[in-house]
Amino acid sequence: MSLDAPYDPHNIFAKIIAGDMPSVQLYEDDDTLAFMDVFPQSEGHCLVVHKTAPATNLLAIEPQALSAVMNGVQKITKAVVKGLSPDGVRVAQFNGAPAGQTVFHLHFHVIPVYEGAALGAHASGGPAAPDVLEPVAAKIRAAL
Amino acid sequence: MSLDAPYDPHNIFAKIIAGDMPSVQLYEDDDTLAFMDVFPQSEGHCLVVHKTAPATNLLAIEPQALSAVMNGVQKITKAVVKGLSPDGVRVAQFNGAPAGQTVFHLHFHVIPVYEGAALGAHASGGPAAPDVLEPVAAKIRAAL
Repeated sequence: MSLDAPYDPHNIFAKIIAGDMPSVQLYEDDDTLAFMDVFPQSEGHCLVVHKTAPATNLLAIEPQALSAVMNGVQKITKAVVKGLSPDGVRVAQFNGAPAGQTVFHLHFHVIPVYEGAALGAHASGGPAAPDVLEPVAAKIRAAL
Repeated sequence: MSLDAPYDPHNIFAKIIAGDMPSVQLYEDDDTLAFMDVFPQSEGHCLVVHKTAPATNLLAIEPQALSAVMNGVQKITKAVVKGLSPDGVRVAQFNGAPAGQTVFHLHFHVIPVYEGAALGAHASGGPAAPDVLEPVAAKIRAAL
């Protein structure tokens, strides 16, 4: 998948946005959706996407849509800090498979970091079950 | 340095913005500055900052300033792709020392990824010399 690959409207995040795939959701507005990553690198690892911008990666999104998704990233980062009290937070966005991108709908990772706990490898085990993610998501939602 | 630490106006990026510390610059406008990371994790690793927003991290920046810095991140990412032809690009932003933040002025890393080449550890060796960074920077600037 090259960096200028066309947007595939059947990617898994498009299905989540359309409600055709389940997700543990955190926040939604007209522009953005935030939901838990099913392959969390730490407790509270979540994702923020634009709902309507057909952008494979950062190269392809319009500035106004990028601003909207970053507002969502900031909102979720604040809620993660308030709700989960991590020692730090990493925000990451990958462009292209060699950079670690696995779903080709632009998304930002919000990854809480807890002192003394190494980050897990992404997708190293099976997906986390919704009943594992839901109590963590509830704490983030309560802090929004 | 906790996540709600006050902004230190004498941090090293504030000095670079003020012109009191040297850097290999890529781009500057009213709001943003982009320059080469002196501890590159790969060839072309650069940083984008807001010039006037006194924000320690993502929690502290106003939405309008965040939009401006993200426009800069997108512009630089496009130039890195055009100028250096990497196989992918990672964008990363760290909040708090446990997350990897070492300078407490909000900044976004733009890190080209080349297939088959592992990313180096940040700040693992000494700083890169300007005459090593400059030819790479020239390719990025030419692609802006």
